[in-house]
Amino acid sequence: MNEITSSAAEATRSRPPVTAFLADWVTKLRFSDIPTEAVETTKRAFADTLSVTLAGAGEAAASRARQALVDEPGKSLVIGTSLRTTARTAAFLNGVAAHVHDFDDGNATMLGHPSTGMVPALLALADERNVSGEQLITAYVAGMEVGAKIARAMTYQHNANGWHTTSTFGTFAATAASAKLLGLDAQQTRDALGIAASMACGIRQNFGTSTKPVHAGRAAENGVMAAKLALAGIDASPTAIEGHEGFMHLFGDLSVICFEDAMRDMGAPFEVMRINVKLYPVCAMVLPALDVLVEGLRNKELDLADITSVRCGTSYQTLNIMRYDRPESHLQAKFSYSYCVAVALRKGDVTLADFTPDALKDPATRKIMESVEPYVHPDQSTPELFEPLYRAGKAFTEVDVMRRDGSLFKRRKSNYIGSSSDPVSWEHLERKYRACTDGMFDSARSDLILTRFQHLDRLNRVGTPILLGLEELQ
Amino acid sequence: MNEITSSAAEATRSRPPVTAFLADWVTKLRFSDIPTEAVETTKRAFADTLSVTLAGAGEAAASRARQALVDEPGKSLVIGTSLRTTARTAAFLNGVAAHVHDFDDGNATMLGHPSTGMVPALLALADERNVSGEQLITAYVAGMEVGAKIARAMTYQHNANGWHTTSTFGTFAATAASAKLLGLDAQQTRDALGIAASMACGIRQNFGTSTKPVHAGRAAENGVMAAKLALAGIDASPTAIEGHEGFMHLFGDLSVICFEDAMRDMGAPFEVMRINVKLYPVCAMVLPALDVLVEGLRNKELDLADITSVRCGTSYQTLNIMRYDRPESHLQAKFSYSYCVAVALRKGDVTLADFTPDALKDPATRKIMESVEPYVHPDQSTPELFEPLYRAGKAFTEVDVMRRDGSLFKRRKSNYIGSSSDPVSWEHLERKYRACTDGMFDSARSDLILTRFQHLDRLNRVGTPILLGLEELQ
Repeated sequence: MNEITSSAAEATRSRPPVTAFLADWVTKLRFSDIPTEAVETTKRAFADTLSVTLAGAGEAAASRARQALVDEPGKSLVIGTSLRTTARTAAFLNGVAAHVHDFDDGNATMLGHPSTGMVPALLALADERNVSGEQLITAYVAGMEVGAKIARAMTYQHNANGWHTTSTFGTFAATAASAKLLGLDAQQTRDALGIAASMACGIRQNFGTSTKPVHAGRAAENGVMAAKLALAGIDASPTAIEGHEGFMHLFGDLSVICFEDAMRDMGAPFEVMRINVKLYPVCAMVLPALDVLVEGLRNKELDLADITSVRCGTSYQTLNIMRYDRPESHLQAKFSYSYCVAVALRKGDVTLADFTPDALKDPATRKIMESVEPYVHPDQSTPELFEPLYRAGKAFTEVDVMRRDGSLFKRRKSNYIGSSSDPVSWEHLERKYRACTDGMFDSARSDLILTRFQHLDRLNRVGTPILLGLEELQ
Repeated sequence: MNEITSSAAEATRSRPPVTAFLADWVTKLRFSDIPTEAVETTKRAFADTLSVTLAGAGEAAASRARQALVDEPGKSLVIGTSLRTTARTAAFLNGVAAHVHDFDDGNATMLGHPSTGMVPALLALADERNVSGEQLITAYVAGMEVGAKIARAMTYQHNANGWHTTSTFGTFAATAASAKLLGLDAQQTRDALGIAASMACGIRQNFGTSTKPVHAGRAAENGVMAAKLALAGIDASPTAIEGHEGFMHLFGDLSVICFEDAMRDMGAPFEVMRINVKLYPVCAMVLPALDVLVEGLRNKELDLADITSVRCGTSYQTLNIMRYDRPESHLQAKFSYSYCVAVALRKGDVTLADFTPDALKDPATRKIMESVEPYVHPDQSTPELFEPLYRAGKAFTEVDVMRRDGSLFKRRKSNYIGSSSDPVSWEHLERKYRACTDGMFDSARSDLILTRFQHLDRLNRVGTPILLGLEELQ
C-alpha cells in the first residue's frame, strides 16, 4: 500500500469506532434502563408530534407531497387521511406534515427537530407489524441519543455551515430508532447507520419553502429505508460515520469535530430530557422574544397603542435563518422575525391561523412590522462568540420596547416556555393538541386519543390507527 | 436587515442564477437541437445501461434491495424480474442493479456514473406514461448536461473531498432528465432542481460495500421524486444550487467553485460526447493498466510465466478509491488494483465471472497479486498536480513489467478502450450485451432487444417492457 492511502486508512483506523459503538449501544438499550421522567417526556413527544402532524396534514405542502406519491398502497396510515401506503412513504408524508407548520419539537444538542423524523418513521413501521408502547418508546429514546450525540461531536459548526440538522442528524436518529423497533442486531444496526450516512442530506437554502418540511419527511423515510435495507442484508462501511471519507468529515469540519464526543455519556442524561416543545408555530429562534412580549402584554406592562419601536438583539445565526425581512409566503413568515413579533404584539398570541396566505396580507400586522427591528447583538455576532453561549444555555434575546412616553421596557431571556429548562406539562400539551385538532374529532374521540398517548407505555399493541382511536385496542 | 444577514443575502444575489438558468435551458432543449452523433451515443448509453442492469439484477445487493421494498406495487418494471412497482421504487431498484457490477458508464466532466441514475429514472417514468424514444433521448441529454456542468463548476475538489459524484451530481442529472420527460415548465424544473439540492447525498466511505450501488439507486429515485414533487407544486429556493446556504457551498469549496462554469457552453459540445463505456466490470481507474496488459499478452509481448513483477504508477486518488489491497469481498475486489491486474495477467481478460465470492478465493490469482505493486506516481501525488492533468485528459498510468530475463516492458497510457477518446462501437456493445445477458433470452428475443435500442429514436412509444421485447410495439 502506498504512503497516501495508508495514511488515509490510518486516519480511519486511529479514530474511535463511532459507528460500531453507537450500533452496539442501541441494541443493548432496554426499556427498563429508561427513567420514568424520560418515559414521560417521550410520551409527550409522541402526543406533541401527532398534534402538529394532524394540523399539518391539511397544509398545501403536505397534500402536494401526497399527490406526488399517491400511487403507493400499503399498510401504514397517512395521518389526517384514510390513505394507507408503504411504511417508507407514510414516514415521508407524515414527516412532511409534522414539520410543515414548524410547530414540532427540538432537541438542544441535536440543534434540530428530532421527533418530526423519528415519530413518523416509528408509527409507519408500527403499522406494519405488532409492537408495544414500550418498544416504541425505547426506539425513540435510542434514536434521540444517536442523533444528538453525533451532533455533539460535530459541534455547532455543522449547523452554522448551513446544513439542516433536522434532515442530516435526523436521518441518523430515525435510522437508529427504526433499527431498534425492527429488532436489528448490532451488525445490522451498524450497517443501517452506515447506509444512513450515505442518505443524509438537506440544505438550509430551502428554508422558507415547502422543501423544508420535505427535509423532515426525507429524514423519516431515510430511517425506515436504511433500517429495512440493512435488515435485508445490504452492508455498509463499519466506519461510515467516522472514516476518512465518512459522514463526519464530509458534513463537518475536522478541526472542531471530537469523535469521542459521539460516544460519551450515553443516556447520562438521556437526550430526551433536552426536548424543547413549541407553544407557537414559528422558528424557535424568535420564541424568547415572543414570550417576553406576550407576558408584558398580559401583565399590562405593555400596550400596543403605546409602543413606538421594538428592537430585538439576537444572534447572527437567528437572523441568518430567520431571513425573510418582508415575507412573501406564509412559510417564509415563520422565518420572519418581524412578522412573528408583530403578530405577538397585535394579538398577545401567535397561532396557526396567523400563518395562512390571507393572514400574511393583513395590513395591520404589516404596519406593526415597520416598528420592529431585529438586530445582531454584538455579543452573539460570530460563531466564536455565539457557540459557547449556546452550549451553556446562555444564548439570549434582548428585547427593548420603546413607549410613546419615552420609557423603555427592557428584558433579556435565554429560554422559552416549553424549552427543556421550562418544560411543558400535559396541560400545555392538551391545549396545543386541542388547538391543532380543532373540529377534527368529536369530544369522546378527542379525549380517547389523548388518553392513549398518556398511557402509551401501557399499550401492548400500538399503531397509528390505534393511537387515533380508529381501531379498538387489543 | 442587519449587516450579517444582508451580506449573506448579498452573496446569494451577487452570484449568477445557476438554478434558474439550468432549469430554463432544460425546458428549451429540443430533440432537433441534438446532433446525430450525440443521439447515437445516447442510444448506446441506454443499451449499455440495460446490459449491466440485467447482469446486476441477479446480484445479492440488488435482490436484497428488492426484498427491502417488496411491498410497493406499481406500473414500472423492475428489470430482470416480473415485478412491477412504483416509478420511484423501480428507479431505485434498477439503479442499484445498474451500478452493482461497477460496469456502467461514466462521464469525464461529471467525474461519476451518469447513466446509472438517469436511465433507471427515465425508464421507470416511461413505464408510467406514454413517451417516445425522442423524448427519452432528449431528457437524457438534458440531464447529462445539467449534472456535468454543475460538476465542472465545483471542480475536482468535490470529488477529491470524498463525495460520491454518481449520487451527488447524479441526483441533479436524474432530476433534470425526469423533469424534462415529465414536461415540467421552467419554474417547475427550477423547483425540481431546488428539491434535488436537498436530496443529494452519498459518501465514498461506503465504496466496496453494497451501499455503493444504493447510491446510484438513490440518485435515480431522487430524480423521480424531485420531479414529481415539483410537478405536484412543492416549491424550493430559486437559488438552491448557488445560494449562500445552497448545494455548491455545502458540497464544495467556495475558493475553487466557479459559478459561471455551470452555465457556459451548454451543449457545446454536448456532454454525452464525453461518455466513457467500460469493457471490464471494475473501477475505471484501473482500466488503462488492464488495456496495456491485455494488449501485451495478446501481442505475445508479455507471457505470465516470464513475469516477475508489475508496478503500476497511478494517481493518489486512484489508490484512495481503489483502497482494498487485499479484498475480502467480491465488491471490494472491483476496488482492488492488485486483484484486477492479477486477473488480467492470468486470463488476458476480466469478466463478471471474476467477481464472485468463489473467484475471489482463487489461490492462483491471489498468488499473482503478490507480484503486483500499484504506487502513486510522483507527478500525480497531490490534487494540485493531478487535477490539471486530469482536466487535460493527460492523467496517466505507467506500467512497468519486469521479466525474468531482466528486460522491462514499459508503457504509459492515459485513456482506455471505451473512453470518449477511444469510444465504443455498436459491435463492442453487442459483445458486452451478450456477455451480460448470457442465457437470459432466446436468440430471437436477444436480437430484438438490441435492435430496439439501436432504433430507440424511431420508437413512438417506449417503456422497459417494450425495450425488453415483452410487449408489442404500437
